Amino acid sequence: MISLDDLKALARPARTKIVLLVMDGVGGLPRSFDGKTELEAAATPNLDALAAQATLGLADPVAPGITPGSGPGHLGIFGYDPLQFRIGRGVLEAVGIDMQMTEKDLAARGNFCSVDAQGLITDRRAGRIPTETCAKLCGLLETIKIPGVELIVRPVREHRFVVLFRGEGLEEGLSESDPQEVGKAPLPVRAEAPRAAHAAEIANRFSAEAKRVLAAEHPANMLLLRGFSRHPDILKLTDIYGVRAGVIAVYPMYRGLARLVGMQAVKAGDTVADEFTALEKSFGQFDFFFVHIKKTDSYGEDGNFDGKMHVIEEVDRELPRLLALQPDVIVVTGDHSTPAACKAHSWHPVPVLLWSKWCRPDGAKGFSERECRFGGLGHIRAAELMPLIMGYAERLAKFGA
Amino acid sequence: MISLDDLKALARPARTKIVLLVMDGVGGLPRSFDGKTELEAAATPNLDALAAQATLGLADPVAPGITPGSGPGHLGIFGYDPLQFRIGRGVLEAVGIDMQMTEKDLAARGNFCSVDAQGLITDRRAGRIPTETCAKLCGLLETIKIPGVELIVRPVREHRFVVLFRGEGLEEGLSESDPQEVGKAPLPVRAEAPRAAHAAEIANRFSAEAKRVLAAEHPANMLLLRGFSRHPDILKLTDIYGVRAGVIAVYPMYRGLARLVGMQAVKAGDTVADEFTALEKSFGQFDFFFVHIKKTDSYGEDGNFDGKMHVIEEVDRELPRLLALQPDVIVVTGDHSTPAACKAHSWHPVPVLLWSKWCRPDGAKGFSERECRFGGLGHIRAAELMPLIMGYAERLAKFGA
Repeated sequence: MISLDDLKALARPARTKIVLLVMDGVGGLPRSFDGKTELEAAATPNLDALAAQATLGLADPVAPGITPGSGPGHLGIFGYDPLQFRIGRGVLEAVGIDMQMTEKDLAARGNFCSVDAQGLITDRRAGRIPTETCAKLCGLLETIKIPGVELIVRPVREHRFVVLFRGEGLEEGLSESDPQEVGKAPLPVRAEAPRAAHAAEIANRFSAEAKRVLAAEHPANMLLLRGFSRHPDILKLTDIYGVRAGVIAVYPMYRGLARLVGMQAVKAGDTVADEFTALEKSFGQFDFFFVHIKKTDSYGEDGNFDGKMHVIEEVDRELPRLLALQPDVIVVTGDHSTPAACKAHSWHPVPVLLWSKWCRPDGAKGFSERECRFGGLGHIRAAELMPLIMGYAERLAKFGA
Repeated sequence: MISLDDLKALARPARTKIVLLVMDGVGGLPRSFDGKTELEAAATPNLDALAAQATLGLADPVAPGITPGSGPGHLGIFGYDPLQFRIGRGVLEAVGIDMQMTEKDLAARGNFCSVDAQGLITDRRAGRIPTETCAKLCGLLETIKIPGVELIVRPVREHRFVVLFRGEGLEEGLSESDPQEVGKAPLPVRAEAPRAAHAAEIANRFSAEAKRVLAAEHPANMLLLRGFSRHPDILKLTDIYGVRAGVIAVYPMYRGLARLVGMQAVKAGDTVADEFTALEKSFGQFDFFFVHIKKTDSYGEDGNFDGKMHVIEEVDRELPRLLALQPDVIVVTGDHSTPAACKAHSWHPVPVLLWSKWCRPDGAKGFSERECRFGGLGHIRAAELMPLIMGYAERLAKFGA
């Protein structure tokens, strides 16, 4: 795969506009009675017409056979090999609630838990306290003072929260404090590499102080920390390709992932139609738009074939609004497959549609997994899509003389 | 390609059963009168029906254009990139005669040769002595005593044998003692790296002692050693994926290769039907079965198109016995192509059929090189097949969150 540095060296300014429309988990599997996938069963006249003029392909999000989480799935379509660039659980949790991370931050996922008088865990989830209680306790944790370190603590849901340790020299490589069992005391955090010694000391100090400030807050009288991870030190998509990039996503997780690679969040509203409105309104402000549709994945996870199919149809109905904006490159794909049959993310390759005036049109009969097998893009890794997009957008100079 | 360590971290327990059916050298080339390959010419109703419900593809055993030997060909389908994991000739010769190697062994291929009174080689193959003579001389060589080193010497055929030097600190990186010419003396073995100095000393001491014990054994009164190599230090397939794996193969070479990656040999009998019987009998004992059919390759090497075609038909006739066992994943492929037209292994990509209930069926008309070009697996490296198999067998957890 071509390196990000090589791509950066090739990038050249252009006025072209790109829309990357991601239907989360769009790839599917056939239903029994007619052998059609969700995408094939959906009535998608607009996508089908676009497919006939586009070049199609199939993309493996990570590698053949590998099922991606949302983080690796999106890194892939943003052009980062997910095997090379890894996002820790703490960071994912932080971006999932729209926290703005900096390069100085070490993030961790936290659980409030219950401990007895001996300090042994009696409930790892503190009886799933209400989110409002969690928010109040996060405020309490922020009163802890650790010299040289700023603490930012935010509730996620019920007993879950995120803590950002902001300071110098807080490196990755920490064990977790969660023993994963009741009847045991929270574990001290260990540095798994010498460079992480300072961070381990800070994390343990935070836990000790937390025990003190939470002492009277039964059932949530202690905390457990996991997934310590730093803001990934990656070249931003905006810096690589010199594009102004905006993200339109209803769910914070996807805005957060896009922000990690340099995109700016656009107010997206709540519905698919709202997202297309946001695209129309912000079309003058950016060169590159990542539009994220969540509910294809949600219905897939629920095993709701028809629900997923209807979301695809909803996107298809809005598509003419996107076409009317006349972007130079349009890509329609997913970050992974979530077949209703699996009720989960899966390893199956994802259909890709790429349209620009520079396509060799495949003349496909429609946009489907089946048609994509024969497409001109072939069978690629998701991370190869971004150079293709930029090539079709005339944003890459010639490689070599 | 995803690393074996990553795959090991993703592997999760499951009850699924996998059968990897390898027809050695199955990939072919068209015959002149009707343009059909061996696989296309064969009447294979069962494979064709399976292909219609399966996802197909083409696999390059090593890399495009590269013709593999049996070692790299099998390493590839076992999930090891043959460019990264290399098996020395000595090891290959040892596993080829069913020798059980340990991590302490340095293997070498030996030739008995003839030398004159001055010690100059007069015949590099000692007149191709009968295998029984070779066996007797191997016994003689085992009487040699070298402190700290156990010697295991076994005949292969005619003048060829294998020696295992078993001891501590016997490292790879030795030159060979065969000057490849008559009229010269056997060469002293040199250490090509400092760490191999001890092994070189042992090898030279063995050659010197051999000269003494063979002195009266004309024409086989000396030996030549080549291909010094250690048991490859690779993560075993069984350890990576947590499967109990069995190999069903008529020829010792393939049992040996499978054992190198952790499989256990099942008594296979002599015929294709015997191998399917062995599969039936051992089906309860393992999760993963590697069934190796040799004669497709043998007939290919002989240039016998019809012979190869008939072996494929024989496998097809037995296939219902495999289907009746209801494995969760079935893969039918080869370790490389051996087109009868080439009378040799070739670089052509190999047809792959992967069936599971989680397939997006390609709806192929049959199992052939032609249909595989349009398959949903695309055009892969053989080493990518194992993660695919494990994905379809639901034996890999999600990568990242």
